[in-house]
Amino acid sequence: MKRTLTSEATKHIGEKVKISGWVQSVRLHGKIIFLDLRDRKGIIQTVFTLKNEEVYEIAKTLKDEWIISIEGIIKERPEKMINPDIDTGTVEINAESIEVLSQVKDLPFEIKNFNLNLTNLLDYRPLTLRNDKIKAIFKIKEKMIQGFRESLINMDFSEFQSPVIVPTATEGGAEIFKLNYFNYDAYLAQSPQFYKQIMVGVNERAFTVAHVCRAEPSVTTRHMSEYISLDAEMGFIESWTEVMDTCEKTIKDTLSSVDKKCSRELAMFEEKVPNLDLKFPRIKMREAQEIIFERTGRDNRKEPDLEPQDEKEICKWAQEKYNSDFVFITHYPTSKRPFYTYRDPEDEKYTLSFDLLYRGLEIVTGGRRINDYDDLVASIKKQGNDPKLFEFYLQAFKYGMPPEGGFAIGSERLVKQTIGLSSVKEANLFPRDMIRIDQRLSVLHPDKSKDKK
Amino acid sequence: MKRTLTSEATKHIGEKVKISGWVQSVRLHGKIIFLDLRDRKGIIQTVFTLKNEEVYEIAKTLKDEWIISIEGIIKERPEKMINPDIDTGTVEINAESIEVLSQVKDLPFEIKNFNLNLTNLLDYRPLTLRNDKIKAIFKIKEKMIQGFRESLINMDFSEFQSPVIVPTATEGGAEIFKLNYFNYDAYLAQSPQFYKQIMVGVNERAFTVAHVCRAEPSVTTRHMSEYISLDAEMGFIESWTEVMDTCEKTIKDTLSSVDKKCSRELAMFEEKVPNLDLKFPRIKMREAQEIIFERTGRDNRKEPDLEPQDEKEICKWAQEKYNSDFVFITHYPTSKRPFYTYRDPEDEKYTLSFDLLYRGLEIVTGGRRINDYDDLVASIKKQGNDPKLFEFYLQAFKYGMPPEGGFAIGSERLVKQTIGLSSVKEANLFPRDMIRIDQRLSVLHPDKSKDKK
Repeated sequence: MKRTLTSEATKHIGEKVKISGWVQSVRLHGKIIFLDLRDRKGIIQTVFTLKNEEVYEIAKTLKDEWIISIEGIIKERPEKMINPDIDTGTVEINAESIEVLSQVKDLPFEIKNFNLNLTNLLDYRPLTLRNDKIKAIFKIKEKMIQGFRESLINMDFSEFQSPVIVPTATEGGAEIFKLNYFNYDAYLAQSPQFYKQIMVGVNERAFTVAHVCRAEPSVTTRHMSEYISLDAEMGFIESWTEVMDTCEKTIKDTLSSVDKKCSRELAMFEEKVPNLDLKFPRIKMREAQEIIFERTGRDNRKEPDLEPQDEKEICKWAQEKYNSDFVFITHYPTSKRPFYTYRDPEDEKYTLSFDLLYRGLEIVTGGRRINDYDDLVASIKKQGNDPKLFEFYLQAFKYGMPPEGGFAIGSERLVKQTIGLSSVKEANLFPRDMIRIDQRLSVLHPDKSKDKK
Repeated sequence: MKRTLTSEATKHIGEKVKISGWVQSVRLHGKIIFLDLRDRKGIIQTVFTLKNEEVYEIAKTLKDEWIISIEGIIKERPEKMINPDIDTGTVEINAESIEVLSQVKDLPFEIKNFNLNLTNLLDYRPLTLRNDKIKAIFKIKEKMIQGFRESLINMDFSEFQSPVIVPTATEGGAEIFKLNYFNYDAYLAQSPQFYKQIMVGVNERAFTVAHVCRAEPSVTTRHMSEYISLDAEMGFIESWTEVMDTCEKTIKDTLSSVDKKCSRELAMFEEKVPNLDLKFPRIKMREAQEIIFERTGRDNRKEPDLEPQDEKEICKWAQEKYNSDFVFITHYPTSKRPFYTYRDPEDEKYTLSFDLLYRGLEIVTGGRRINDYDDLVASIKKQGNDPKLFEFYLQAFKYGMPPEGGFAIGSERLVKQTIGLSSVKEANLFPRDMIRIDQRLSVLHPDKSKDKK
């Protein structure tokens, strides 16, 4: 018999069907057993009675997460037994036969309802991912990435795949992982920056869903060793603010798409998708520091960047003044931005760059880039690097690059801030950090950990 | 003035517009200059005359790939001047002003028309990617990946991102790259296999567009160090042939989508998308070897795998007998397949596995997997591995996994075979192999190369 999905059950009242899935829960009520059966579409109540004793006896042995196939008749429930919380709440299936597809070792905790700390959440990831609320996080992330793609495809961007292995540790900034590459040194890409710029030389507008790896030596709620960066880059900009406009539209399209496709999932969290009709306010970093000084007395007006607590404070201000969950901070100092960042012609100490803050956290960084070959070579030299190491990348500029810019959205940060998670790691299926790749490194390498002490 | 794209030009006859792009070619005809201007949508003919001498003089200095903005009036061309080969062939633009956005250093070769060997093609990748025919390869690849996604989403698969950094070199098979991970050893994923299986435990059906890295020590037309693997995995299969059915449908949907969206691009190559109405023939590996022996006298009937020339021969046979560009080879020996492959209950020396060959080349590998925890642990031990190293992966089975299987499509191989490229490297934007990461390693590391001699 062919399998019927729970989502189709209400169309088969009075018919015999086969339903397969995981045991979500079993409740023994004397002569009757109620079992919630979960498949990829939802849950259905399955009923076992002594009328069919052999099947009833098997059902008695079932435990959570066992995988079974049931054959039986779909029946309407009496009105007072209707469960409005599930899609199949008007029906149940009377089991006539049962097949156990997979038995389960003792569960370390109950899956449908747990309150675990991050360590346990990740130690048991293959299991905790089955929890309804955790599944919702990744449905939201999946639809977010789809929304990002759709938004940019609608604006004529082409998608490409950016490489993971890169030849040199040249981009600067965050720490980089080193690789043994056929006895040469190679590295893991810290961003698709060079490649998306090269693709502007090809298709004008390019985007990528990139795996980026950063050897961040800190264990925070905002960092991981590997994450998914949503990167876009566009040529023929008339002004650098066009990059911000495009970024704003992309974020709005993306969140609006999540809002439409994930209403059930979003409702499981306390936060809501922000009001997307409001224009994101834009202020210069120095203005932001001034505002923070006025509001808090904290004088960071000479600092080259905003600290995490500054980001929180200026978001509070944007919320109070503009009712906005977002705020663009612009014109970061040249000294704090990578060599390819375009300098403000009105004051070369600052760049035509921006960060986007969302509910207290930076989630996007972007800006205009230097597109003139000679300027770019000079900027590389100024940072003490050898242009020879950049020859491949520089070809894109040597042979004609339009005025261009782009941005990178941290996908896990966007998820985290939208639904109010406590760490980006909760928004990554298999987060890697200083102490963990799937399993804790101290568990994987017990000898090594001992050596370290 | 706002930019108009070439694709919009015919809607603005008689109007003044601004068009920006790359100089595709300049032809001086005495008092008149014809310039083909290329943007992301296509090409438009731009005309400069002495009527506007200052602009004419600038136009005289332009060279291929310079980037310019033109303002001028769109005019209909006289009937006999119409160019049917380009979308804007009925119009041209009379330039009234010009702005040079980016000048170009001397080009090493002509971009619109070249015949380069693979080394030069890759040495100048940022430049060669701008060639119309090369661009077509990547438009086809982009639409292929989109088609793959759409096909699986329609079949209720969820997309996820599979990690690049993995903790252990456990999967066996191809060579693996080692990484310095905060002074621990880590590795680059050779496939998303373990993660897509874990995701079957969560969503039943999962797919991913994965970056996979393999330290293949050979320099062939079929291998790279990093490539894009189109991976899918599905639970609750009734039979292992369901995995093949799904694979066949996915391939057909994907190629049909490319056929619809890339007719212009496909026409640039000699090969055509195959007939997708035919069912792919399926034969056991031992039967294939028998057929090859009968046809060629080459006796590989005791070999545990097909050699490249065997793959070509059996594809010839499938073409002759079934008119099919595809053939599934099934039941590979247990000894040649990874530990998680499901054994044929009728003969445990063979597995319920398959490869899909396409025009002489293996492009897919797949099969049913062991889903019983105890069987899987036994299989790990049998291959001489320590189950402790697989604890994370094994959780997915320990806590309930349905009968399941999946497949992996080599995206570059699928492109290569569809349009008849000579190497998979031509179907990867930035291919990495033993001798190259963007630049040749001997150029990047001249000292090291000297040491090696």
